[in-house]
Amino acid sequence: MAPTKKVGILGATGTVGQRFILLLADHPVFTIHALGASSRSAGKPYKDAVKWKQAKPIPANTENLTVMACVPEEFKECDVVFSGLDADVAGDIEMAFLKSNLVVFSNAKNYRRDPTVPLIVPTVNTSHFDIIPYQRTVYKQSKGFLITNANCSTTGLVVPLKALQDAFGPMTHILVHTQQAISGSGYPGVPSLDILDNIVPYISGEEEKMEWETSKILGGSDGQQFLPLTNTIVSATCTRVPVIDGHLESVSVKFANGCPSVEEIYKVLEEYTTEPQALGCHSAPQQAILVNKAADRPQPRLDRELDKGQAVTVGRVRPCPVLDIKFMLLVHNTVLGAAGSSVLNAEVAVAKGLI
Amino acid sequence: MAPTKKVGILGATGTVGQRFILLLADHPVFTIHALGASSRSAGKPYKDAVKWKQAKPIPANTENLTVMACVPEEFKECDVVFSGLDADVAGDIEMAFLKSNLVVFSNAKNYRRDPTVPLIVPTVNTSHFDIIPYQRTVYKQSKGFLITNANCSTTGLVVPLKALQDAFGPMTHILVHTQQAISGSGYPGVPSLDILDNIVPYISGEEEKMEWETSKILGGSDGQQFLPLTNTIVSATCTRVPVIDGHLESVSVKFANGCPSVEEIYKVLEEYTTEPQALGCHSAPQQAILVNKAADRPQPRLDRELDKGQAVTVGRVRPCPVLDIKFMLLVHNTVLGAAGSSVLNAEVAVAKGLI
Amino acid sequence: MAPTKKVGILGATGTVGQRFILLLADHPVFTIHALGASSRSAGKPYKDAVKWKQAKPIPANTENLTVMACVPEEFKECDVVFSGLDADVAGDIEMAFLKSNLVVFSNAKNYRRDPTVPLIVPTVNTSHFDIIPYQRTVYKQSKGFLITNANCSTTGLVVPLKALQDAFGPMTHILVHTQQAISGSGYPGVPSLDILDNIVPYISGEEEKMEWETSKILGGSDGQQFLPLTNTIVSATCTRVPVIDGHLESVSVKFANGCPSVEEIYKVLEEYTTEPQALGCHSAPQQAILVNKAADRPQPRLDRELDKGQAVTVGRVRPCPVLDIKFMLLVHNTVLGAAGSSVLNAEVAVAKGLI
Amino acid sequence: MAPTKKVGILGATGTVGQRFILLLADHPVFTIHALGASSRSAGKPYKDAVKWKQAKPIPANTENLTVMACVPEEFKECDVVFSGLDADVAGDIEMAFLKSNLVVFSNAKNYRRDPTVPLIVPTVNTSHFDIIPYQRTVYKQSKGFLITNANCSTTGLVVPLKALQDAFGPMTHILVHTQQAISGSGYPGVPSLDILDNIVPYISGEEEKMEWETSKILGGSDGQQFLPLTNTIVSATCTRVPVIDGHLESVSVKFANGCPSVEEIYKVLEEYTTEPQALGCHSAPQQAILVNKAADRPQPRLDRELDKGQAVTVGRVRPCPVLDIKFMLLVHNTVLGAAGSSVLNAEVAVAKGLI
Repeated sequence: MAPTKKVGILGATGTVGQRFILLLADHPVFTIHALGASSRSAGKPYKDAVKWKQAKPIPANTENLTVMACVPEEFKECDVVFSGLDADVAGDIEMAFLKSNLVVFSNAKNYRRDPTVPLIVPTVNTSHFDIIPYQRTVYKQSKGFLITNANCSTTGLVVPLKALQDAFGPMTHILVHTQQAISGSGYPGVPSLDILDNIVPYISGEEEKMEWETSKILGGSDGQQFLPLTNTIVSATCTRVPVIDGHLESVSVKFANGCPSVEEIYKVLEEYTTEPQALGCHSAPQQAILVNKAADRPQPRLDRELDKGQAVTVGRVRPCPVLDIKFMLLVHNTVLGAAGSSVLNAEVAVAKGLI
Repeated sequence: MAPTKKVGILGATGTVGQRFILLLADHPVFTIHALGASSRSAGKPYKDAVKWKQAKPIPANTENLTVMACVPEEFKECDVVFSGLDADVAGDIEMAFLKSNLVVFSNAKNYRRDPTVPLIVPTVNTSHFDIIPYQRTVYKQSKGFLITNANCSTTGLVVPLKALQDAFGPMTHILVHTQQAISGSGYPGVPSLDILDNIVPYISGEEEKMEWETSKILGGSDGQQFLPLTNTIVSATCTRVPVIDGHLESVSVKFANGCPSVEEIYKVLEEYTTEPQALGCHSAPQQAILVNKAADRPQPRLDRELDKGQAVTVGRVRPCPVLDIKFMLLVHNTVLGAAGSSVLNAEVAVAKGLI
Repeated sequence: MAPTKKVGILGATGTVGQRFILLLADHPVFTIHALGASSRSAGKPYKDAVKWKQAKPIPANTENLTVMACVPEEFKECDVVFSGLDADVAGDIEMAFLKSNLVVFSNAKNYRRDPTVPLIVPTVNTSHFDIIPYQRTVYKQSKGFLITNANCSTTGLVVPLKALQDAFGPMTHILVHTQQAISGSGYPGVPSLDILDNIVPYISGEEEKMEWETSKILGGSDGQQFLPLTNTIVSATCTRVPVIDGHLESVSVKFANGCPSVEEIYKVLEEYTTEPQALGCHSAPQQAILVNKAADRPQPRLDRELDKGQAVTVGRVRPCPVLDIKFMLLVHNTVLGAAGSSVLNAEVAVAKGLI
Repeated sequence: MAPTKKVGILGATGTVGQRFILLLADHPVFTIHALGASSRSAGKPYKDAVKWKQAKPIPANTENLTVMACVPEEFKECDVVFSGLDADVAGDIEMAFLKSNLVVFSNAKNYRRDPTVPLIVPTVNTSHFDIIPYQRTVYKQSKGFLITNANCSTTGLVVPLKALQDAFGPMTHILVHTQQAISGSGYPGVPSLDILDNIVPYISGEEEKMEWETSKILGGSDGQQFLPLTNTIVSATCTRVPVIDGHLESVSVKFANGCPSVEEIYKVLEEYTTEPQALGCHSAPQQAILVNKAADRPQPRLDRELDKGQAVTVGRVRPCPVLDIKFMLLVHNTVLGAAGSSVLNAEVAVAKGLI
C-alpha cells in the first residue's frame, strides 16, 4: 500500500531535519513532499544544500528535492509538517503555518508552554491530543493544529516515570542527573576542544526545561486546559559528555504512598504498554521500556539503537538511601528524544483520525 | 636542605606507584630509597620493570633503582613506606610491614574499616592522627603505624562537605553522582572498546565505599575509636566516562539546621583552610577548595591540574529543589584522590612529629 | 526457502565470533548449528559464556545454544566451520578440523603462508579457490578444505589495487599508511589509557603482514601453487587510533606502464565488478568499491557501514608527486576485514559447488 | 634581572594568542605590554574578552590588561609584536605594523611566500635572518622587520630532515602522512560531531603548504633572496584525528647520495644541535630532537610536552622498502608548531642584535 499522507519538513538541512528524512525514507503512511530551510538553501537540490552528517546516505527519493523557503504557501499540499527549526526562528514560522490551517509537529521549545498546545511524548501522554478540538477553536482553524514534543532529556525521563506513576501513584520528589550526547546540540554544536577528554557540566536552559516539562507531561488534561502535577518537585542537573548519541540519566524518586520493591518496579516497567503500540503505529517500539538487569547497563553505545531508537532502556533499579528508589535510563536523543517522537506523534494523530 | 626521610614505594610499577614517583621526584623532605613490586619485577632496574604511562619521563634518580620484593627486610631503612598495592595483595603485605614497626601510608581499601586505622583525607581530617598512639599499643609497635587514604571519589566529596559541616552544622542527606576518569581503574584498566563513545554506569564496589567512607571521615575521633556520623544518609551513583584524569561529581545536600544561602556557601568554601596549610606542608595546596563561579565549570581537562592537583574545584552552587543545595566538584583522582593524599598525609605526620 | 547448510563457529565468544553470529543470524543459506570456545566456556549457554559487546543484541536463535569445546567430533555435522580463533590456538585446532574432513574458513594468520592454502579476499581473488582440489590431495581429504582470509588492513588495500592492476597493469611500488580502529585488536584489546587523546604508532606484526599478504593475494594461481607478485614493492606503516570501527588507509602507488589520469582511475574503481556479485551471493556488496569524491571522505564513522560493511570506500584520488597516484580508502575491519570476508568466501564456495 | 623588551600580542584572544600569553608569562627577556584583538574585544579587560581554553589559568599580570584594536599606534612602544592573527585579517594588519617600523613575528600564512620575508623554524634555519637588512631596504624601515614561522606540520617535519640533510646530503624524495591534533584548527575549530570516533582525511590547504614550505625552509639564502631546494620532491597527506595536542607524522625519504644505516641516522638525530641552543636562548629545547627507540613511540599524549614542547620526538627509524628510510615524528603543534617558534625566533633575533 502506497503512503497516503504528504509531509513537509522544516529545518530539513539541520541535524533534526536529517533524522526526519531518514525516519521517513520508507514510511508506510508518510511520503516526503516538501523540504524547507533558510533562504540561503532555498532553491538548491537538497543534496547540495545539506551538510549530511548521518552514517546512512541521503535517501535516493530525497536527494534531488528542491529546498523551499519556510513559508506556508510552499507546504499547502502537505497533510503534515514536521518542524526541526531552531528556536530563534521557529516561533514565527510555526505560528504562520498553524494559522494557514496546517498540521505542525514541532521539536522547538517555543510553544511548549502554550496553554492550548500539547507537549507530547508518544509513549507517555497521547491522551493530551484531546485538547486539539479546543486548540482549533482558539486559533480558528478547521483542520490545522500544533503539537510539540519534549526536550530530549525530559523525553527519556518521563517514560519510566509514567509507568511508575500509573502503578504506584504520585511521586513527591524526582532528582535526575544527565550525561548528554553531543548530537543533542546540533551541528557544528559542541567544539571538539571543549569535549574531548572532558565533560561540560552545564547546558544552557536544560535543567529548567526538565523541571517544568516533566510536570506538564505527567499531568492531566481536561480537554480545555492542562493540569500539571502540583505536588511533585523535580531537581535536574545536566552535563555534556563525549558520546555521539544517547543520553544517560541517573534518577532518584520518592513516592507519596510508600516505596514499592525493586521487583515490583521491574515488573511494572517490563509490562508497561502504550497507546501507539495499541494503535499499531509503524514507528512504535515493541516495548516502550526495555529492562536490562545487567550490573553495568544501560550504556549509550550498546543500547541506544535498540528497538529503532524509540524505546527507553532502564537498568540498575535499586534502593536510594536518600529518596526511595534510584535507577538509570538511556534514551536515543535524536530519535525518541527528537524526530522520532514527532513522527510517532503524527502516526498516532492519523490513527485517531485527527489528520 | 637535603631531604632527610627515606621512603619506600610498594606497587611502584602500577599507576598509583608511578604517581608516587613523580610526586617524590624533587621532594624537600622525602627521598626515594626503595621500590617494591611483584616477584615478576623484582631484581630488574625500575625502567625495565615498569610500563611507564605518564606524560613526564621517569625521573633520572629513579630509573635505575633495582626493584625489590615487597618484604619488610628490604624496606627496613625506610622512614616511610607508601603503598600503591592492589587490594588483592595489600592486606597481607601492609600488615607485615606494620608488624615490622614500619610506617605505612596506604591507598588500598583493605584496612580502611579497621577500628584503629585512620582513613585520612589530608585537607579534611588530619585530626584522626590522634589515634596513632593507641594503634601502636594495639599492634604492639614502637614507631610503626598504618594510615589509609580514601577512595578517589570520596576524597573529592568530603573536602567541600567538611567546609560546609564546619560552618553550617550537620547534613542529614547527601546525594552524589560521579563521572569518573579512566585512570582511576589503573592499567590496563578500562578496555577502550568499553568507553570510547560510551559511558559505563557502574563501578564495582564504588558506591558502597563512598557511602560509608564519607561517614568515617566526616565523623570524629576520641583517640581510641572513631565516631562516624550517625544521622547523615549518603546515596551515591558512580559512572565511568571517557576522560583521562579528573573525577567530576554532582552533589545535593540537606542541612539539619536550615539552608544557608548560595553566597554564604561560596564564602565558606573560599575561606576554608586546613591543617596541612597551617603546618606549611610542601604538597599542601594554596587553597584546599578553589571556587569557580563560571556557569560551565569545573571541567576535568581545564581544572584538574590546578594547585598541583591537590585542590578540589567547586562550582555551580545553586538551590536544589529536592534537598537544599546542589553543586559540582572536581578532584584529580590520581593526585589528591590517591598518591597525593598519601604524600601530604605523610608530610603532616612528619610535621606533627609522628615520624 | 530455509537455510540448507549447517555451520559451526570456533572462537564464538570473541569479537570476531560475535560478528559471525550477527552476520549469520538471518542467513538464507547458512544456519548456526554449533558454537565452539575455550574449555572455560564449554558447556554453558552462549549468553552466559559471552561478554557481548555488539550494539545489536544476541540473536534469539543463538543465545541459548550450548557452547562446545573446539574439537572436530562436536562439529562433524557442520557443512562449514568458521574460525575466529586467536592465532595462539588456531594452528592446532584448525588443522585437526581440516584433517577430520571439515570445511574451514579461518580469520587466523596461522595458515596464510601455507603453499596450498588460499588467502582470499572475496572481492579480489576468488580465483584462488582453484587450488582446493590440489589441497585436498595434499591433506588427503575428500570434502574438507581450509581457506584463510586476510589481515583486516590488507583486505581494504587489495580491493582497489586489484581494480587498478586489472585495468592498468602491474604496480612497481605501493606505499600505505594505516589508521586502524580499536576493534581490530579484540577485547579487552587496547587499554583506554593508551588510546584516549592519543595515537599508538605501532601494531605488532601488522606492517609485515600487509607487505607480504598483498603480494600473495594480487598474484596468480596455477591450481597447484600460488604465484605472488615479484616486481611489486610494498611499504606499510600501521597506527592505532581512537576510532571504534573502520580502518582508514592512505595509499600511494607507482605503475610499471605509465600513470593513468585521475578520471581514468575513478572510472575503473566505479566500474569494478567481482565474482561474488556475479554469482549473486547474499553477502556480496552492491559495489565492491564505493567512490566518494567529496574532498573530506572517506571517514570511518560516516562510511564504514555502507553496503553492509562489505564495500571499500575510496576517495581523494590525486597525483602523488613522489610516486604516481595517491588516494584514501576505508574498510570495515570487522566485517569485510574479518568475519564478513569468511562468510562471503563460504558463499562463493557454495555457489561454485565446493561445499 | 627584569625583562627588558616590551612585547605586544595580536590576536591575543585566539588559541595561538593564548599560547603566547602562557609562554611569555614569566619570560626573562620579554614582558607583555599590549594585547590586540578584534574591535569586538577592544576596550575590555583581557579576562572578559577571552574564552580561555588552557589548562593553566590566565597569568595574573595579564588578566586585567585592556585589549586594544590591532593598529600600530597602540603598539608603538613594543620592541616586538607577536601575531596570532587569522589569515583573513593578518595581511593588512601585519603590513601596517611593518610599515610603522615595528618588529613582527607572525604565525599567519600571508607573507610566508614573500621573497624578502624569512620563513623560520628556530631549530632549523635561523641563518635566514641574514635577509633582514635587505628586507629593511625593500620596505624602507630602519628597525622594523617581519618574520614568519611555518605551518605546524611543516615545522615538525623539517627539524629531523634538516639534521639528515646536513649529515647525509640532499634528499630527492620525501613522502609524509600526518595525523593532526584538533587544537591546530583553533576555537571553536573542529566540531565534535566530525571527530569523535572518527578521522577527517583532509585539511584545506595543508598538503600544499607542507610541500612548498619544506623547500623554502631547507633551502639556503644569499642575503638578498632565498634559494629553495630544486631537486627535492615532497608529497604530503594530512588528516585530522581526535587528539587534543600533538601532530604525529610518518615520513619516508630517499637520499641522493645513498642510504645511511638506521644506526647512523639515530646518531645524527641525537647529536643534532642548533643555533638557539648555542646562543643560550631561554626557550630553546635542551635537545632539538629527542630520540625514542621504543617500538611504539612517539605518542602524542606521552611525548608532546617533553622539553617544554619545543623539541621534536623521533622514533621508529627503519628501512623503507619503497624509498630509503622511514620514521615517525611528533611535534607539539601549538608550541614549537606555532607560538613557541615565534617566541624562540624572537629570542634569537635579540641574541643576534636585530632587536
